Amino acid sequence: MDTWMRLMANDGSIVFGRVENGYLHEYEGLDQPVPTGAVLSLRALTPLAPCAPGKVVALWNNFHALALKLEKPVPEHPLFLIKPASSVIGSGDAIRRPAHYAGKIVFEGELGIVIGKRCRDASLEEAEASIFGYTIVNDVTAAGLLAENPHFPQWCRAKGFDTFCCLGPAIVSGFDWRSARVVTRLDGVERQNYPLDDMVFSPAQQVSLISQDLTLEPGDVIACGTSLGVGSIGEGATVEVTIEGIGALVNALGVPVRDRADAAQSANEREKPAVVW
Amino acid sequence: MDTWMRLMANDGSIVFGRVENGYLHEYEGLDQPVPTGAVLSLRALTPLAPCAPGKVVALWNNFHALALKLEKPVPEHPLFLIKPASSVIGSGDAIRRPAHYAGKIVFEGELGIVIGKRCRDASLEEAEASIFGYTIVNDVTAAGLLAENPHFPQWCRAKGFDTFCCLGPAIVSGFDWRSARVVTRLDGVERQNYPLDDMVFSPAQQVSLISQDLTLEPGDVIACGTSLGVGSIGEGATVEVTIEGIGALVNALGVPVRDRADAAQSANEREKPAVVW
Repeated sequence: MDTWMRLMANDGSIVFGRVENGYLHEYEGLDQPVPTGAVLSLRALTPLAPCAPGKVVALWNNFHALALKLEKPVPEHPLFLIKPASSVIGSGDAIRRPAHYAGKIVFEGELGIVIGKRCRDASLEEAEASIFGYTIVNDVTAAGLLAENPHFPQWCRAKGFDTFCCLGPAIVSGFDWRSARVVTRLDGVERQNYPLDDMVFSPAQQVSLISQDLTLEPGDVIACGTSLGVGSIGEGATVEVTIEGIGALVNALGVPVRDRADAAQSANEREKPAVVW
Repeated sequence: MDTWMRLMANDGSIVFGRVENGYLHEYEGLDQPVPTGAVLSLRALTPLAPCAPGKVVALWNNFHALALKLEKPVPEHPLFLIKPASSVIGSGDAIRRPAHYAGKIVFEGELGIVIGKRCRDASLEEAEASIFGYTIVNDVTAAGLLAENPHFPQWCRAKGFDTFCCLGPAIVSGFDWRSARVVTRLDGVERQNYPLDDMVFSPAQQVSLISQDLTLEPGDVIACGTSLGVGSIGEGATVEVTIEGIGALVNALGVPVRDRADAAQSANEREKPAVVW
C-alpha cells in the first residue's frame, strides 16, 4: 500500500507524489508514476483534492442494503450521473450552499476509484489494472432539487454544484477494499457505517462496464455509490468520512475546517485519523 | 463575425485560430485571443471539434414548440445533464454505436454556446460577455436507454457515450442567433427546421443561470436543447446539422464522412455549405 497526495506549494505550483513519514516524494503524475527525485516536507505544502478528475462518474443504487431499503431491484448495469470537474474540492475545503437554494444539503460517504490509465471497453482484468488506487468521496447533493421538476429529475444539477464533490485526503494504491467499511460522522456522531463488500458492482466491474460506455482517463474518479444513513448537513456542520487505511475526508458546510498544520499532521497520522473539531 | 477553427497539423500538434480565405491565423487560444503571428493553409490541416470542452452542459425542454408537443410546462430554470469531454467528436468523425446496445440512436440538431471566460454567478451582462461564440451540436442519444431502468432515467449514460457529442465545424463570434434557424437533414432529407428565437432561455440567460450552479470554463459548451423533428439514425446514415452563418456539421453512424480536402473546402465555403454525400 502506498499513499499519494496532491498539494500546492507556496509559489502556487502543484505537486503530486507518494507520502512517507511526513515527506512527499514527488512523481511526474498519476499516469506517469515516475519519481522526479524531489522530496518535499508536507509542512510546506497545502493539501488539495488528491487528483484532478476530468469527470466524476457517480453511481446510484450500488449497495444491496440500500436497494433493499429503497425497495428497488439492484441494477444490471451501473446507474450513474456525471459530476463535473468544477464540483471537486479537497479535504478541509468548505462546501458552499448554492446562492439560490435554501433546501436540504445531504452527505453521502463513498469509496472513490481513481483511474490510472486510459480505459475503454476494458475486460475485468484490464479494468483492475487501470485502477491507480482508492480515495474517499463525499457526494454532496442539494436533495430538494432532485424532484423539483416532476418531468426531469435533476441528478446532474443537484449533485453538480461547485464544491459538491469532496475528494481526499489521499489516494491509496494496493488498498484492499473488500475488508473495509465506510464510516461517516456528522459533527462527531456516527451516521453511516457500512461494509464495502456489500457493493452490487465491484470496482473492477464498475470500471469495466462504465468503460464500455465512455472512455475513462487518468485521474477520473468513479464514486461507488453510498449505502444506508445519508442525512442532511446543517449550516456549519462538519462531515467526516473515514475509510480505515485511506484516512479521513473532512468538510463542513459554509466554513473551511483545516489549517495547513492540521492537514499535514493528519496526512502523517493516517492510521489513526485526527478528529479536527 | 469571425470564424474560428481547431485543427491538427501533420506532426500531431493542435492549432486554433481565425479562418479567412482558406488560411488559419493562429491564436493562443479561446481564453487568450492573441494572434501568434503564424498563418497556415487549411489544406495542410485536419479539422477537429472547434474547442475541447471540459464539460458539455446539455439542456432538455428549452423550446416552446417542443414543450407544447411534449405537453410539458416550460421550465423555470434550465434543465440539464452533463455530457463528458470523452463524448466529443468533430464534423466528419464517425458516430460509433456502443458495443452492447442494439436500440435506436437519435440525432438532435442544436445551437452550441462556447464559453470564452471563466464564469461563476454571472449577471446577464457578464454572461453575454463570457460567450466566445456559437457552434453547432448534434446531441446524439441512445434513446432506448433513457427509460430502460424504471427507477433511474439514464440521461448521462444515454447521451454520454464516446462520439455522442458532435461539435463543429467552426465557432462563429459575433453571431446573431436571434434570426437563425437550425436545419437538420438525415441522408439529405430535411427533418428539423426550427427558429432559435423560440428558445425558452436565451444563451445569455442559460450562461447566467447555469453559472449560478457550476463554474463554466473557457471552451465549455452549452448545448441549447433541440426542438421538433428528432429521429433515429440508421447504420451508415448521415446527419447534417446546418445553421446559416456557422456552417454544416456532418456526421454519419459508423463511418467517417470527410476527407481532408472536403473539410478544408467546406470551411472555406461556409456561406454555401457543401453537401458531402
